[in-house]
Amino acid sequence: MKKNAQYLASLRQVMKEKGIDVVIVSGTDPHQSELPPRHWRGREWLTGFESGNGTNGTAVVLADEAYCWTDSRYFIQAEDQLKDTGFKMMKEDGPEAVDLIDWVTEHTSAGQTVAIDGMTFSISWAQRLQQELDDNGVKLNDNFPLFDYIWNERPERPVNRLFIHDEKIVGETVDSKMSRILDAVKSEMGNAILLSALDDIAWATNLRTAGDIAFSPIFVAYLYIDNNKRVLFIDNKKLTPEVEAHLKKYNFETRPYEDVLQFVETLPKETRLLIDPDKTSRGLYDHISCTPVFGGSQVAKLKSIKNASMISNLKTAMKKDGVALTRFFMMVENEYPKGTLTELGLGKTLRALRLADPSCVDESFSPILGWNGHGAIVHYEATEESDIPVTGNGLLLVDSGGQYTYGTTDITRTIALGTPTAEQKHDFTLVMKGHIALARAIFPQGTRGGQLDVLARQYLWNEGKAYYHGTGHGVGFFINCHEGPQSIRLNDVNVALQPGMITSNEPGLYLEGEYGIRCENLIATELWKTTGFGDFYHFEVLTLFPFDTTLIEKEIMTESEIEWLNNYHDKVYKELSPLLQPDEQKWLAEKCKVI
Amino acid sequence: MKKNAQYLASLRQVMKEKGIDVVIVSGTDPHQSELPPRHWRGREWLTGFESGNGTNGTAVVLADEAYCWTDSRYFIQAEDQLKDTGFKMMKEDGPEAVDLIDWVTEHTSAGQTVAIDGMTFSISWAQRLQQELDDNGVKLNDNFPLFDYIWNERPERPVNRLFIHDEKIVGETVDSKMSRILDAVKSEMGNAILLSALDDIAWATNLRTAGDIAFSPIFVAYLYIDNNKRVLFIDNKKLTPEVEAHLKKYNFETRPYEDVLQFVETLPKETRLLIDPDKTSRGLYDHISCTPVFGGSQVAKLKSIKNASMISNLKTAMKKDGVALTRFFMMVENEYPKGTLTELGLGKTLRALRLADPSCVDESFSPILGWNGHGAIVHYEATEESDIPVTGNGLLLVDSGGQYTYGTTDITRTIALGTPTAEQKHDFTLVMKGHIALARAIFPQGTRGGQLDVLARQYLWNEGKAYYHGTGHGVGFFINCHEGPQSIRLNDVNVALQPGMITSNEPGLYLEGEYGIRCENLIATELWKTTGFGDFYHFEVLTLFPFDTTLIEKEIMTESEIEWLNNYHDKVYKELSPLLQPDEQKWLAEKCKVI
Repeated sequence: MKKNAQYLASLRQVMKEKGIDVVIVSGTDPHQSELPPRHWRGREWLTGFESGNGTNGTAVVLADEAYCWTDSRYFIQAEDQLKDTGFKMMKEDGPEAVDLIDWVTEHTSAGQTVAIDGMTFSISWAQRLQQELDDNGVKLNDNFPLFDYIWNERPERPVNRLFIHDEKIVGETVDSKMSRILDAVKSEMGNAILLSALDDIAWATNLRTAGDIAFSPIFVAYLYIDNNKRVLFIDNKKLTPEVEAHLKKYNFETRPYEDVLQFVETLPKETRLLIDPDKTSRGLYDHISCTPVFGGSQVAKLKSIKNASMISNLKTAMKKDGVALTRFFMMVENEYPKGTLTELGLGKTLRALRLADPSCVDESFSPILGWNGHGAIVHYEATEESDIPVTGNGLLLVDSGGQYTYGTTDITRTIALGTPTAEQKHDFTLVMKGHIALARAIFPQGTRGGQLDVLARQYLWNEGKAYYHGTGHGVGFFINCHEGPQSIRLNDVNVALQPGMITSNEPGLYLEGEYGIRCENLIATELWKTTGFGDFYHFEVLTLFPFDTTLIEKEIMTESEIEWLNNYHDKVYKELSPLLQPDEQKWLAEKCKVI
Repeated sequence: MKKNAQYLASLRQVMKEKGIDVVIVSGTDPHQSELPPRHWRGREWLTGFESGNGTNGTAVVLADEAYCWTDSRYFIQAEDQLKDTGFKMMKEDGPEAVDLIDWVTEHTSAGQTVAIDGMTFSISWAQRLQQELDDNGVKLNDNFPLFDYIWNERPERPVNRLFIHDEKIVGETVDSKMSRILDAVKSEMGNAILLSALDDIAWATNLRTAGDIAFSPIFVAYLYIDNNKRVLFIDNKKLTPEVEAHLKKYNFETRPYEDVLQFVETLPKETRLLIDPDKTSRGLYDHISCTPVFGGSQVAKLKSIKNASMISNLKTAMKKDGVALTRFFMMVENEYPKGTLTELGLGKTLRALRLADPSCVDESFSPILGWNGHGAIVHYEATEESDIPVTGNGLLLVDSGGQYTYGTTDITRTIALGTPTAEQKHDFTLVMKGHIALARAIFPQGTRGGQLDVLARQYLWNEGKAYYHGTGHGVGFFINCHEGPQSIRLNDVNVALQPGMITSNEPGLYLEGEYGIRCENLIATELWKTTGFGDFYHFEVLTLFPFDTTLIEKEIMTESEIEWLNNYHDKVYKELSPLLQPDEQKWLAEKCKVI
């Protein structure tokens, strides 16, 4: 047995002492972060299902059983890592999905107690749990900080120093943001707001750091704003004199991170405090003494719309990214015949090429480099154990991005090495036809991403093929690579695409054990034309790197699709070539040549 | 002033006596019917905004102001009819929409009383009203049956006789339906159900009538079902010996319609009564003594899926409809040169041609016959005042349908009379391209109509053109022409298209004052193929009548679009010609010839 069995035994001891029948262990932090800092990765520590960058999972511990739920990205890894830990894997999505709350409800009976650390679950999730437990006479203890009892060598909270995200790049002062936030608060009937989501806080303050959260320059804090007061709750070790001056300039007071609980306890009744029930923790909610108002997703909406300065700077980031990718794929082609390439090695090279630019602070997510069958694992992450040499014929899928101070990039290219099969070319072309259809879409004001999603899928569906991930996610500006509220996916969200919103365009196709295909650019919504029928929008393509034309089955492309592709490649060459060495220019010209 | 000013004065007198500051007057009945029987058309009587078939509107009466809300279908008519009645029109949709509940909330203050007749508002609507009023300290009196006080010559409830909808056509016994309903009730944690929606009740009992509700063979009743009991609340004048025998055979007891309130008052606490909060009245809800469970839209879902017998019989109805339409459009072409055609006259002829078939009980809605500019009014209904001669060059839009015992039809054709303009042909072809794209769609299990909607709109959007109505509504089987829960429209509903569901496919384009175009067929979802990626569905086209090929701009059609149209016309001719006279066959062959 692994040491996790011991941790589990300690937890069960505490449960027994405190009369707790079931503990649900969160996989996230008080800010509902996608990849929480180590300090809050107790679920990983407890179960042994973990990675350097964070995983997704929620554990459930009973007196003589224990389970860990995770999503389809991690099924294989979790199954493996959970061996001999005392935990069994449960599926959170896919055809064999089991709803955790339903499961807990079915496995408890009246009079029993279920415990959670309320600081690490959202208000809305805990509310649903409570309702289902209440209906069955089961008690909920939402104040069970289990890791205080059993995690002896728990890492500290991160204390990385902040820096200012240049106002010239951002194109908006903090005062302007504060005033827009307060307008939004007013429109939702509040008179104050408490932000918990770390990307919202980084956006609002024009501050960033590196290291708190993997692949994202955001930092651990809370932010309170009303008409007279701006309070940032943060460890003061994170503040430099420059940052302190910036905060002073914009009339922020700072208080220790932990003080947020006491602060919300003492807010006067007249404060109608706007909080987002999906982003704010149940534990914090329990401390609120004033009048809470649920809402607040307006800040995410403000953040999602990029101004002209941001779009223009992002184009600079795209050029830098295109240069790094040119060098990377040129190297792949040159080295491939030697038979020395491996997935892990390629990942390291790609990282180094991106970080060679001083404005690139980090990658924007753990890169996915999948050769043949590994490309069919949608969120494949090469490890020492899984790594394979990139040799023989096949498809290489490379999904990666950078955190530039000029903006965040995210791009996927699938290339053939050796000789591709007719089937690979056919599938690649179907994916590209969908990619192009979405890229060229024109749509009236008010259209939601979910309405356009089928444009990217239609050619695959026509042949009984499909991918089940989203076609497009929102992308932050030197913040999270994934952000809301807009998206282009099968599940509709009630958010219209607006000028300035950036999303990905990434249809794909995955044949288990054989190959994966994904073609991804970032696209920005912008006004196309105003007609007698209203305002119409289209997308501007931001990403700059050629698609592999050796994978195109030209016979199934229409003339206008071929024209789109040639025009795109023409633009890529024009934008990138001035930044390249002569041999690189030559290589890129070949890749961008008209088909 | 019209007599409505007098009615308004009487209402205000009662309001004064009872200390009521605002009355909200419903436009529907205790069953939330789209077109309520006359007995419940008090809002029409009060405001004077009315038609033979029913309108949509909700009135608000204050001490010295009065308003009537309605939707964009009726703006012109309502504005006109409300003149000199004391009521002003308010818009329920469109860019100048005012939310009624918000408006009432803003125009009342703490301590005032708002009154409604709770029997005519849904639970969910009244709940929202109550919440907003509560927040402002305004009282809600939900038991104010205003028409009992002021409507002296109120029509009686309809007492049309029921008849049995042949089990051979329906393909399912009432017992089978009862058992499927009770399974659905159980899945929603209930042990009994009360149906209020009249189409649900007609479907569940295999009973119909004619005359209770305009254009739909459904009847006024409530239906209670649990494991041991089936109670139909209905005026016994509506029962014939055959119907009584049918009800007895399936173990229904009948009780007077009004007794439903007393019945739900005396249900034991253990009854977990499933009710649909959108279909059940607040007034009835107030009488429920047992445990109410909100849900129950499952019955609408069961009803929406047509079995093989229904689909096969609907094809018979489609042939009958195609024959009537052939005769109609042939007559239009023959008579048009004489200059004697009018919109109203055409409507009467079309009705007569449909009803000539003994299985056609009624039209399925008030037909829309719009010449040129009138075709651009989406829900145009020709009246003595609006009627115009169909002369000169132009487009004639004909949207109509029949209630056959073999099923309900709904079809729109737009034809050119005289010489169409290039612009008319271009626009017609864009609409047809969208119609064809949706008709040919292939999509995996789980796909919602809202996801496919863009397929029908894309070619219009590409040119900055748009229509804003739904592309497809669900269609009942010898019940309501409009039914849920599925739809294909801009606003997504969370219902997947399933084999057996029937929807319309009706993209359009409307140029105010110039012309309207709409091309509508009914389509049924069916299994296409099972592949390694899951089950894929496609549509079977059910409607049988040619589109006007003289309006096609062939240059902007793809080869496969032209092939689809030629194949469809080939099928239409093969199915209809055996039922036609030689001259009709000749006419149809010309319309169906290959382009």
